[in-house]
Amino acid sequence: MNRPRRSEHTREALIEAGIEQLSVHGYHGTGIKQILDEVGVPKGSFYNFFASKEAFVVEVIGHYNQDLLNQLSQFINGEGKNLNTVEQLRSIYRYSLKQYESHHFKRSCLVGSIASEISAESEMCRIELERSMKQWLAVFSDLFKQGQQQGLMRDDMSSRDIAGLYWSAWEGALITMKMMADTKPVEKTMELMITTLLKK
Amino acid sequence: MNRPRRSEHTREALIEAGIEQLSVHGYHGTGIKQILDEVGVPKGSFYNFFASKEAFVVEVIGHYNQDLLNQLSQFINGEGKNLNTVEQLRSIYRYSLKQYESHHFKRSCLVGSIASEISAESEMCRIELERSMKQWLAVFSDLFKQGQQQGLMRDDMSSRDIAGLYWSAWEGALITMKMMADTKPVEKTMELMITTLLKK
Repeated sequence: MNRPRRSEHTREALIEAGIEQLSVHGYHGTGIKQILDEVGVPKGSFYNFFASKEAFVVEVIGHYNQDLLNQLSQFINGEGKNLNTVEQLRSIYRYSLKQYESHHFKRSCLVGSIASEISAESEMCRIELERSMKQWLAVFSDLFKQGQQQGLMRDDMSSRDIAGLYWSAWEGALITMKMMADTKPVEKTMELMITTLLKK
Repeated sequence: MNRPRRSEHTREALIEAGIEQLSVHGYHGTGIKQILDEVGVPKGSFYNFFASKEAFVVEVIGHYNQDLLNQLSQFINGEGKNLNTVEQLRSIYRYSLKQYESHHFKRSCLVGSIASEISAESEMCRIELERSMKQWLAVFSDLFKQGQQQGLMRDDMSSRDIAGLYWSAWEGALITMKMMADTKPVEKTMELMITTLLKK
């Protein structure tokens, strides 16, 4: 009677393992076998859950992004509610950096790293990655609009354009983090962004 | 008598093929066999030239970066000599984008994409990538210093810090280029950087 539930549990466990493995090893560096071994699922059954590695990665990206959006929304409407935009942005980037540091800089943003690796090779993944980025941009665009209304952020460009710039600076800075195994270069870049470049 | 020369030629051809393949497929997505097939070299002989795939990629990164530095220097001291800093920066990013477009957005900056993929896995590559980035930063730091002296770029932060920010924005924007198979988002980001955010 509980087969569907167990099957749903396995599916979720595979996706969670996928987020972990793909964040560290990338698309080509992650084998299906690694994922199955981690969850303890026999090899043959992978295709009961997913049509292909590519379809699996699309779901992994979607789940990763939904988790991120949930966390952002929880923070913005909860703990971060009474902070101004600069303080909110600082809390958000510091929270992410803390997580990356706890994984010894082996993991960073899954969307950016997978997009860099396989956008040109997988149209299915590319579409999901673009969708994920645009949802992130919508959230940050709202934050920047609020910052503009608070008189804290520059308003000579649209909040959407600022969000686009911020995404690029963040993703690029995460590459320096991995390259130098250090969060300091990212902190420097993000602080310059929020306290100087984007300041009104 | 010409064996050493032929061998040197093969070595260079392998490195050139490596730049191409690694730029498109990344570290894990590029097999040694692909490289050898492209150059028409039998499989066994790869290890006559390079100790390992990792050692090969270190050389590929070094060559890629040296080519880039040569091109930058040639431009800055030649065609770009009489341009102001903003015009120089624009010419440089547009030149790169034209090249990426001609490769249908399958290639972008090798340093950024390989760093994103394998910094945590290969210490040898990580060191070479960091060295490459720092050389790039030195060139751009000089450009920004000049821009500050010309009164064109903001001088409330050091030219080195501006170069660091610019590298991150560029590398992040290149991810959006791949993700959207379009240069427009990068152009937007870079124009906002040089004409608005970094403007004095």
